Amino acid sequence: MLYLIGLGLGDAKDITVKGLEVVRRCSRVYLEAYTSVLTVGKEALEEFYGRKLVVADREEVEQEADNILKDADISDVAFLVVGDPFGATTHSDLVLRATKLGIPYRVIHNASIMNAVGCCGLQLYKFGETVSIVFWTDTWRPESFFDKVKKNRQNGMHTLCLLELFLLPTDIKVKEQSLENLIKGRKIYEPPRYMSVNQAAQQLLEIVQNQRIRGEEPAVTEETLCVGLARVGADDQKIAAGTLRQMCTVDLGEPLHSLIITGGSIHPMEMEMLSLFSIPENSSESQSINGL
Amino acid sequence: MLYLIGLGLGDAKDITVKGLEVVRRCSRVYLEAYTSVLTVGKEALEEFYGRKLVVADREEVEQEADNILKDADISDVAFLVVGDPFGATTHSDLVLRATKLGIPYRVIHNASIMNAVGCCGLQLYKFGETVSIVFWTDTWRPESFFDKVKKNRQNGMHTLCLLELFLLPTDIKVKEQSLENLIKGRKIYEPPRYMSVNQAAQQLLEIVQNQRIRGEEPAVTEETLCVGLARVGADDQKIAAGTLRQMCTVDLGEPLHSLIITGGSIHPMEMEMLSLFSIPENSSESQSINGL
Repeated sequence: MLYLIGLGLGDAKDITVKGLEVVRRCSRVYLEAYTSVLTVGKEALEEFYGRKLVVADREEVEQEADNILKDADISDVAFLVVGDPFGATTHSDLVLRATKLGIPYRVIHNASIMNAVGCCGLQLYKFGETVSIVFWTDTWRPESFFDKVKKNRQNGMHTLCLLELFLLPTDIKVKEQSLENLIKGRKIYEPPRYMSVNQAAQQLLEIVQNQRIRGEEPAVTEETLCVGLARVGADDQKIAAGTLRQMCTVDLGEPLHSLIITGGSIHPMEMEMLSLFSIPENSSESQSINGL
Repeated sequence: MLYLIGLGLGDAKDITVKGLEVVRRCSRVYLEAYTSVLTVGKEALEEFYGRKLVVADREEVEQEADNILKDADISDVAFLVVGDPFGATTHSDLVLRATKLGIPYRVIHNASIMNAVGCCGLQLYKFGETVSIVFWTDTWRPESFFDKVKKNRQNGMHTLCLLELFLLPTDIKVKEQSLENLIKGRKIYEPPRYMSVNQAAQQLLEIVQNQRIRGEEPAVTEETLCVGLARVGADDQKIAAGTLRQMCTVDLGEPLHSLIITGGSIHPMEMEMLSLFSIPENSSESQSINGL
């Protein structure tokens, strides 16, 4: 049996009791290490689970899935995923490969950023399509995700923006190649980086300005109410509600960050919840949301 | 401290290790028993947690929240919620009440139907606004949710339909009054009921027919690809992919059920995953999705 097990969002103890039992009895345990990370590293997980983990990077899962699935028809193999196995990133490829090999599989769910963002008080059922915001380069500055934000806002829906990350915890090597090195066939590992709410907000404001220059009416402005979230589910999680302008300077600390662009029509109960996380008046930006 | 703890979707062991540790050391533990249920009842939870649970119905949580929060500033109180505390139903009211009383709170997240539906292979980020389908009565036959499905489909997004439930497990009494009894002030508890995928699909088809009668072009037809899900996260979960017509007769067994109306443009990987759950040709409906 192949078990796809969600680890949740915080630390080692966010695994479910059922998930932990399975991890402890599987013959091999893989840790998916290329889409997200917990606040603790591989060693802490190994210590708590009482099992050695094999770190599986993107290359391995995509190109050597058969190694992961080896003997999974006669023994139990666990594939651990931060969040939920079918959260922001799906692991359909591994499931399909297993099914073709006649290997049964089972999913043990957990919280993912896709549902845990509800903790800010915005109602999950009012979220529209989720978008990803990636780092711009000199030559690649995609704005297309902004159309989805626009559509969501036109329909009164909130937008969860997942912010790009290439993370390198002390014990997990995430391989990410630069375009230049890729073209030249050089295998060089780039330093880790993650996008902060500040960076995402600045990029969004640049798009807003570009749209104004082109004479378009931007669906989002400097005053649009947003929510920045950091380390959701961890002991030191931080949530800040304020304008997009405020999101450029708010200090949410360490990764991982996510950003929500609200959908315009906000329920009084949502607004009351957001007020718990309102950026204070005396913060570096004076444009705080007095309405909250 | 007030702890809002998600129990996940299956049985007692779907609580997280962190959640279980908190439950075992809280001075009082409440079980929210009006929005969803696990596949096991209160006794099974009490046995596994090693704690007595106080069942809190909607009336109690809304009108006697202060009892729940009593002494939570000097001791730890747990409020257990099936799924995630900020999933399909938010518990913002309790959080706001606690905050006003100066009681700190913490959320321990878990899987909810809002993210666990990803197990069918449809990509979560492509879901639009979530809708609720309620039981029609002779006098109340709301169709307004259908506009949201239409908007989602126009934008290529899938729609998760949450199906109404009034459940009465052996040990949890869910109070639900009929309109007639409510008007007459009689406190009589109605029998439990939950909406099946079959009932939801039949209701949807009736709306489609009504729209045709009114000369409107329905956004959904008998042939629209849908996914029925039952007992997501439980050992015996069932998923069936097929046309809306097929959803009228597919047998998914016991509650809880959910229905997804796909968004039209389906990624090949999504389609390949759905094919794992395709309703077989020889089922009672011959209109199976051959394309899958």
